[in-house]
Amino acid sequence: MRHWLAGRTESRLQARLLAELRDEGPLSKAQLADRLEVSRTTVGVEVGRLGELGLAIEAGPAASRGGRRSVLVDLSPDIRFAGIAIGATGLSVGVTDGRLTTLAVRHRLCDIKQGPETVLALALDMVREVMGEAGVAELSGAGVGVPGPVDFHRGVSVSPPIMPGWDGYPVRDAVSRDLGCPVVLDNDVNVLAVGEQHAGVAKTARDFLFVKIGTGIGCGIVVDGDLYRGVDGCAGDIGHIRVDDFGPTCACGNTGCLEAFAGGAALARDATAAARAGRSTVLADLLAERGSLTAADVGSAVELGDPVAVQLIRDSGHRIGQVLASLVSFFNPGLIVIGGGVTGIGHSLLAEIRGVTYRRSLPLATGNLPIVLSELGAEGGVVGAARLVSEAVYSSPPGGAA
Amino acid sequence: MRHWLAGRTESRLQARLLAELRDEGPLSKAQLADRLEVSRTTVGVEVGRLGELGLAIEAGPAASRGGRRSVLVDLSPDIRFAGIAIGATGLSVGVTDGRLTTLAVRHRLCDIKQGPETVLALALDMVREVMGEAGVAELSGAGVGVPGPVDFHRGVSVSPPIMPGWDGYPVRDAVSRDLGCPVVLDNDVNVLAVGEQHAGVAKTARDFLFVKIGTGIGCGIVVDGDLYRGVDGCAGDIGHIRVDDFGPTCACGNTGCLEAFAGGAALARDATAAARAGRSTVLADLLAERGSLTAADVGSAVELGDPVAVQLIRDSGHRIGQVLASLVSFFNPGLIVIGGGVTGIGHSLLAEIRGVTYRRSLPLATGNLPIVLSELGAEGGVVGAARLVSEAVYSSPPGGAA
Repeated sequence: MRHWLAGRTESRLQARLLAELRDEGPLSKAQLADRLEVSRTTVGVEVGRLGELGLAIEAGPAASRGGRRSVLVDLSPDIRFAGIAIGATGLSVGVTDGRLTTLAVRHRLCDIKQGPETVLALALDMVREVMGEAGVAELSGAGVGVPGPVDFHRGVSVSPPIMPGWDGYPVRDAVSRDLGCPVVLDNDVNVLAVGEQHAGVAKTARDFLFVKIGTGIGCGIVVDGDLYRGVDGCAGDIGHIRVDDFGPTCACGNTGCLEAFAGGAALARDATAAARAGRSTVLADLLAERGSLTAADVGSAVELGDPVAVQLIRDSGHRIGQVLASLVSFFNPGLIVIGGGVTGIGHSLLAEIRGVTYRRSLPLATGNLPIVLSELGAEGGVVGAARLVSEAVYSSPPGGAA
Repeated sequence: MRHWLAGRTESRLQARLLAELRDEGPLSKAQLADRLEVSRTTVGVEVGRLGELGLAIEAGPAASRGGRRSVLVDLSPDIRFAGIAIGATGLSVGVTDGRLTTLAVRHRLCDIKQGPETVLALALDMVREVMGEAGVAELSGAGVGVPGPVDFHRGVSVSPPIMPGWDGYPVRDAVSRDLGCPVVLDNDVNVLAVGEQHAGVAKTARDFLFVKIGTGIGCGIVVDGDLYRGVDGCAGDIGHIRVDDFGPTCACGNTGCLEAFAGGAALARDATAAARAGRSTVLADLLAERGSLTAADVGSAVELGDPVAVQLIRDSGHRIGQVLASLVSFFNPGLIVIGGGVTGIGHSLLAEIRGVTYRRSLPLATGNLPIVLSELGAEGGVVGAARLVSEAVYSSPPGGAA
């Protein structure tokens, strides 16, 4: 295994150069010099070093810009990243090249409650499968996202309410040992946010929020192009903002949390209660048919014109919109992307969230604020996880002390 | 007048070097090389350039570190900044050296409603007074803070609810023309936040919030040491977060804004209503004596043991705490500093804010979160305004194209 952190480079220039190649594709040395605001000579020196590290290559002459012909620089074709996106009920695993284009992806159902050994063993099997499928022998790094809080610097899960057995588990080191490459661990929402930044609707946004509405509710925050994690790494945990003094008990043990009112689990709970109380025959029929109800069933009931289901979605969207309106007035983002499983239940939720957010935020902050659904599927997590580890590898290449 | 923007330097290194000298004091070339992660030769070249620009000097031999003796570098003793902090009811104006130490400061009462010509004429007179007092002939730059929204890039006030006549007024250019130096304009809360960062309790904080509770309520946001303004420049405008669907009408025209429930103006309004309705003899006596009530009078009534005044302060602190709790869960800051006129009314407001914020935030985010009162007086605004312009001057020195 490479001791990647031992050789931590001091060169921010190398990191910026590699990120330019990742996000823009091959560039001439002249273009790199312009973008990085350094001389062509400096670019040449850094490209040489990165060549020795196996990260960049000279890819032939660049198109002429009129003067002296420049040389085209590209990422090494040997760079391969794995992205492992672990959700509450399923896994998505893929392998990408240095520009984070996915070469092979697999999805599989898996309950997070089975604990870290079982879930990670399956994830690692899937990594080997996608590596085989894409003909990849060695990884440059792997990114992992988990559906709960993470101590980013230590690479462990911390007190995750829906993940019994994961508290304090050294996910990063376990995966790194198995795969023999550097690994970065983050929570699923941060992973989705950077995936959106790389391949989704947030490509040109510098300051944006990614709001995931799944079983729970969370938010990824990007400030000036970089993920903002907060001083304890728990920034964006908006599911536990208290929207009421009273209310249903949350998975975290408190009452009044946004996610206990408005997440996918809350929708399922309220729909089940409505079905049992005889308030909705549509929901009661679905419950009888399936034995239990999910947020997706509420969506089906909305499609069947059930007014109780419509009201449940509206109430959920209203609560989420109230919180987002506060965050818009505070943070003045350039874009809000809504993602996660619950967004699959149709546009009525988005309509309600938008209506409340636009109506209640500071007008100056909403004038140019798009609130849009993510268009990335489960691959968003794979790309995001790969991007997170690419940032680590590109900013401290193995053996890359400058 | 110097055409400072014409000669915008590309050198981030120069800006970082000057900021080090501003914040740390004189440093040897060897120390600068360490801190900036460049060679001593590079430091020597940049110091030479900054010397020609009149910004840095070589100040003799540095203390030996054992090897070759290094040269001490300092900011030029000729650098002088003005800081102009305009409040709703008064002005603070000062002149500082390059390290932002105040050399002379004046305060004067002045109603912002008199409009920009009158207020700025007074401010500029005060600048000339403090320049005379400190023996300063020429300014390197001036920073201006105003109590309302600002278009930072254009340097104008925009739709300020409490500032009739200021909308669209070119404050920056007017002051720059008069003083013959670069000028930066920002809102008062951002100015106070960076003042706190430079000279107050936030000196070592990288990610913190400065919450001003004055006539209105606002928040300055610092991310990784830099002011975060949001995409439209209105980040931190938490006074207009809607905390209720109904409620008193706000100065902005909406209902339910935090500041309409909990700011200084709201306290004065509610105290007046309580006095008139015969609910508090203490407040009624104060009203009879003074003709009108202010937030400070509510503080006096608290000191006299008036239960109605105590409840008003508690309600105010409770509303503010609810909003701060949401922001703490979202932003996970390392520090919250509370400042502004209303903090002068005693510790009961802070106690209530703290209680609610700690109780309602995500536990992970409050474990190490101090919530403290600002210890800087009106000088905080002067230092903050000077710091903002120092950042502009140091990152693009007059004639400083590298």
